[in-house]
Amino acid sequence: MRGAVIYAPGDVRVEERENPRIAHPSDAIIRLSATCVCGSDLWDFRGINPVHQPTPMGHEYVGIVEEVGEDVKNVKIGDFVVGSFFASDNTCDICRAGYQTSCIHREFVGAGGAQAELLRVPLADGTLVATPAIPDAELIPSFMAASDVLGTGWFGAVAAQAGPGKTVAVVGDGAVGLLAVLAAQQLGAERIIAMSRHASRQKLALEFGATDIVTERGDEGVAKIKELTDGLGAHSVIEAVGTQESMMQAIRSTRAGGHVGYVGVAHDVSLPGEEMFYSHVHLHGGPAPVRQFLPELIQLIWDRTIEPGKVFDLEVALEDIAEGYQAMDERRAIKALVRL
Amino acid sequence: MRGAVIYAPGDVRVEERENPRIAHPSDAIIRLSATCVCGSDLWDFRGINPVHQPTPMGHEYVGIVEEVGEDVKNVKIGDFVVGSFFASDNTCDICRAGYQTSCIHREFVGAGGAQAELLRVPLADGTLVATPAIPDAELIPSFMAASDVLGTGWFGAVAAQAGPGKTVAVVGDGAVGLLAVLAAQQLGAERIIAMSRHASRQKLALEFGATDIVTERGDEGVAKIKELTDGLGAHSVIEAVGTQESMMQAIRSTRAGGHVGYVGVAHDVSLPGEEMFYSHVHLHGGPAPVRQFLPELIQLIWDRTIEPGKVFDLEVALEDIAEGYQAMDERRAIKALVRL
Repeated sequence: MRGAVIYAPGDVRVEERENPRIAHPSDAIIRLSATCVCGSDLWDFRGINPVHQPTPMGHEYVGIVEEVGEDVKNVKIGDFVVGSFFASDNTCDICRAGYQTSCIHREFVGAGGAQAELLRVPLADGTLVATPAIPDAELIPSFMAASDVLGTGWFGAVAAQAGPGKTVAVVGDGAVGLLAVLAAQQLGAERIIAMSRHASRQKLALEFGATDIVTERGDEGVAKIKELTDGLGAHSVIEAVGTQESMMQAIRSTRAGGHVGYVGVAHDVSLPGEEMFYSHVHLHGGPAPVRQFLPELIQLIWDRTIEPGKVFDLEVALEDIAEGYQAMDERRAIKALVRL
Repeated sequence: MRGAVIYAPGDVRVEERENPRIAHPSDAIIRLSATCVCGSDLWDFRGINPVHQPTPMGHEYVGIVEEVGEDVKNVKIGDFVVGSFFASDNTCDICRAGYQTSCIHREFVGAGGAQAELLRVPLADGTLVATPAIPDAELIPSFMAASDVLGTGWFGAVAAQAGPGKTVAVVGDGAVGLLAVLAAQQLGAERIIAMSRHASRQKLALEFGATDIVTERGDEGVAKIKELTDGLGAHSVIEAVGTQESMMQAIRSTRAGGHVGYVGVAHDVSLPGEEMFYSHVHLHGGPAPVRQFLPELIQLIWDRTIEPGKVFDLEVALEDIAEGYQAMDERRAIKALVRL
């Protein structure tokens, strides 16, 4: 099969790789209908995460079940399925509490490299969710989004307790931040402030339900949020970047007693204990347990209630996926889709 | 009046001070029935917080209303009242959300020094809660505890979402940690693990409802909590110390999706973002909004359902309050009471 492999920062190649095989009775093999490039892939592409050896890339996937291990019962050959970047048994105490990305048996699905034609998914019964039937092609981008960025933005909004009567602010205008806007809107938030200085992203934020746009950043961004909220700060703030600056912007934009939901993968972040203490904010986040939300998200997409696939503003062939990385790195594209 | 003043680390003196007076129409003057020494007073006594000038000490108080400003309506002269260390209007959006210690009009009551015979309490209507009648002398220590350490331990337990079906661990065996055990028990926790290596504190923890005692600390303490919880960690962990070590012990003792309630005043604490991210814990805490809980706590004490006053294992005269500091500093006493 063909698949993307990173060799060094900036050097992503599509090459012939060995087809994955069933390794455990709980595995499934998926023939991908689409894959895509994640903002977190850019940490490797930019050399911020070290690349020690050629490494298969990608952890977002939708596709048709091609083969299942003998223990697999919940999905069958021919199903169109969506799964998350962490495989989970969906039965342990941690999964049942809704934290499948911390499942006691979790495995990183991306280890096999989802930017490829085929993918082995461990713990298929607890990881994959089938759509009601094979979806129309136009729905593929939205299901693709559900595999990670929609579920991640959704978790951010849930962790920030976005809901009726709440003013929600979103720090970060990447795909996750934009879909956190959509999630906040679906969860019934009264007011949604998107923090963005890019015209195309502002436009999408407004389409997804943002009521206000704030272009300022850092301390000025915080001051602007305070100004819009009677000096108190937002009830709910979603952090979707993962830097020290964005975390502090999120925490300082939140009112006392409010909630920060942080889903940007934290890089070199250190939270000052005394400021946290006196801030009175609730802090929750981490790798989104997308599996928890998949049944609901799949239904919303199937019913055409939401169209998260709009975050894909670039489509490339698998052979040209490096261009997808490049465009996202240069912020020419929000998110790059590959149909297979 | 007589009142305690700190001059330098280790140097607390009781001296003649000017009687407080009504300064604003919303003030009340209280004649204290009791006061006490707080664990947080020790930060000054130990020289960890700098002492720049002679400073009146104490922020915990119960007593009889002696005088009220013309706007005060909720308490009257002769009432026995309990209040918290921060005065609050109890009407702003932040107060109504239950965060009176972040009230937009908050004032530190302790600025006047509650280790004294008289105290001015600002925003009396939003700060003070009267008991149903003048309490018996034997109830005074418990009402005294409600002013801070009980309310703080209670907030820690609420922030950690202690409740039915939950395994709760408590880091810190000072008065706050011990009363967090009591709070967890009252909130219906199934199992309560007190982390303590002091026999007298272990005994009180068991009286307050602890089901298990863990004597190990740091990584060994975390390993022991994991061992007691099927390798997962506790659902709810209350942090009642405020150091880097105790915060990390609390976070690492909590299962994915679990809750850390932190009420130890953070000193030189820095939380590693990446570890927080992957921990999947909820983090909430800060200066306890004791006012939120006072009506309920006063009733529980009045009805003799709880006896938080047991944390006072030393009683000294106001003139000898320095001995209370000394005994707590050396951990000879859990908490020192002064009756007036």
